[in-house]
Amino acid sequence: MRALFAEWVAQSGFGLTVDALGSMWVRRPGLEDHLPPVVIGSHLDTQARGGRFDGILGVLAGLEVLRSLEDAGYKTRRPIEVVNWTNEEGARFSPPMLASLVFSGGMAPDAAEDRRDPAGIRFGDALDAIGARGTVSPLAKPVDACFELHIEQGPALDAAKVPVGIVTGGFAMSGRRLRITGRTAHVGPTPMMHRSNALVGAAAAALAVDELGWRYAPEQGKSTAARLDLRPNLPGIISDEADLWVDYRHPDPARLADMDADLEAALTDCARRTRTRIEIAERWGFGGFSFDADLVSLLKDTAQALSIPAVEMLSQAGHDAYHVAKVAPAVMIFTPCIGGITHNEAENIDRDMTLPGIRLLMEAVVARANR
Amino acid sequence: MRALFAEWVAQSGFGLTVDALGSMWVRRPGLEDHLPPVVIGSHLDTQARGGRFDGILGVLAGLEVLRSLEDAGYKTRRPIEVVNWTNEEGARFSPPMLASLVFSGGMAPDAAEDRRDPAGIRFGDALDAIGARGTVSPLAKPVDACFELHIEQGPALDAAKVPVGIVTGGFAMSGRRLRITGRTAHVGPTPMMHRSNALVGAAAAALAVDELGWRYAPEQGKSTAARLDLRPNLPGIISDEADLWVDYRHPDPARLADMDADLEAALTDCARRTRTRIEIAERWGFGGFSFDADLVSLLKDTAQALSIPAVEMLSQAGHDAYHVAKVAPAVMIFTPCIGGITHNEAENIDRDMTLPGIRLLMEAVVARANR
Repeated sequence: MRALFAEWVAQSGFGLTVDALGSMWVRRPGLEDHLPPVVIGSHLDTQARGGRFDGILGVLAGLEVLRSLEDAGYKTRRPIEVVNWTNEEGARFSPPMLASLVFSGGMAPDAAEDRRDPAGIRFGDALDAIGARGTVSPLAKPVDACFELHIEQGPALDAAKVPVGIVTGGFAMSGRRLRITGRTAHVGPTPMMHRSNALVGAAAAALAVDELGWRYAPEQGKSTAARLDLRPNLPGIISDEADLWVDYRHPDPARLADMDADLEAALTDCARRTRTRIEIAERWGFGGFSFDADLVSLLKDTAQALSIPAVEMLSQAGHDAYHVAKVAPAVMIFTPCIGGITHNEAENIDRDMTLPGIRLLMEAVVARANR
Repeated sequence: MRALFAEWVAQSGFGLTVDALGSMWVRRPGLEDHLPPVVIGSHLDTQARGGRFDGILGVLAGLEVLRSLEDAGYKTRRPIEVVNWTNEEGARFSPPMLASLVFSGGMAPDAAEDRRDPAGIRFGDALDAIGARGTVSPLAKPVDACFELHIEQGPALDAAKVPVGIVTGGFAMSGRRLRITGRTAHVGPTPMMHRSNALVGAAAAALAVDELGWRYAPEQGKSTAARLDLRPNLPGIISDEADLWVDYRHPDPARLADMDADLEAALTDCARRTRTRIEIAERWGFGGFSFDADLVSLLKDTAQALSIPAVEMLSQAGHDAYHVAKVAPAVMIFTPCIGGITHNEAENIDRDMTLPGIRLLMEAVVARANR
């Protein structure tokens, strides 16, 4: 992906620099090239079993904006840069959105390089192994504005047959790693009343998490029991340790706090019923914020001027733009994905439903770059 | 373990042969050495997170019987052999009780060598790597009688302060590998009603399995959700595939059949509630049989003659003697394990509560070897 993208950038004649965390920066100079650039950014990496458009569409749309301006011989006042952020998905190295997190000051570059995959390989070493590490600082530089175009990853735009979502902010999200502790024992002779099976505790917690999502579903709340690691996880022995990663989201941060409280109460009950210990071992979260109001207005006005049907909406997934928004004005454009299917190899888009969003991206970027 | 045992055998002056699956056979000749031997067998391997007595006690008790006869200068009519069966636990290579399974004709030696561990390493290659493969055939040879002494792995003997359990047969056991199928999707934007999470389906199945054990617990039934593998099992994506290994046991084979039926009905309900597909991908079982009546009588009579308190009981775990019983008269002796704690590093025994069982083993083996 990275090599192909670099090849396309070179063919288009743009300069490419790679920063120390592997993020790829393409630059089209401005007439006043010392001014902070307008940035178009998303990611080329994908999920295990993910599709071909999540992230990729936004990076390629950015490249196409630069090419179109080049084809038209059109100069902007400010430079425009397109960035492919490294490791947005977090499929191998957690956390997701790692490079944009570092860019925004949320994690030191050294700490990012020290993240390890399940096999114990360091993120920095993995970058070196594929020759993906550049020399430019991965920390924030002055940015005039940042735009991210992305497939919606939900069914709303596709269902309504509206080509553009103007993203005004993000759902509030809570992540938790639960640690469930039981006691190893033989699966055969151990009487039921002597058992404390971490898998059973984790199963109760996973169902409680799922139920939480259904309870808040009428308000667009949702929840996921996403990942479960058990030890020793063998057929002949009861497991004594489990880690369960859970994720829940709500458009309203206050209601997310209610979900937090509901979950904690439910976990106490799960632990009691399954005679295991259940603790919250790690907490994280993102979202629950608004994108830059000026950029939202710019997108609304531009869509209206171009007669592009658009709706305002919140993003439910995390995106690199969430982190960038902490250090620069940022906004997102959503385009439809068919049936809302994403993080799935069947993920797909319709070209005609996608072009209006890219047109809007170009016009808004140009307007901002000429500011 | 193997090297230490071989050293002790050599120090005691007994011959040691290793068969092609790595089982170690120690032989003390008889006066009529052409007669089929009396065999004392158990295993030296242990579980991940297992203890120091499960299996090991039975092998060392066998060696001690040979040493005691040697010390006393006592000759038996038949030869006596002690066997350390390879891979009883199945902690790395499934199925458990692999070498005794092959011995009894339940699996071809080639098929056993082709079993692979989770890293894809062949069992035969793993044997070669530690120099554990011998040349003798691993298939059954004529055996006069087989005795296995083992810790009970349950709390009954310890609670009753009775030193010996004479094992008349085995609980009936059913094993199932369930395959749960969902659909990958993003953990964020995917509406609850569009989700089909294999982890949630597996969690519902695991709780149903646990509930099954509680329902039959008053009749000594029990059940275990033992192992769960999920794919892709990552924080940002809903898993679409899960394998759940379950195990349930009952003293009465007819009631085990009722448990089979209850489980199938419960799984249909779990699949419906979690909107996943749940299939039984693999079935296996063991137990539900009686040990050799003559050997049971011999143990009862001998215990009575020696004034050793003993109770008759069923084994709830699987043991190598289960397989050997298909090709030769076999029986087991249980000794207490403290608190019934087993498959746990805290597994422990009391020496004074163990010696009567070993005494019984020796006397019964000698009686049979002189038959």
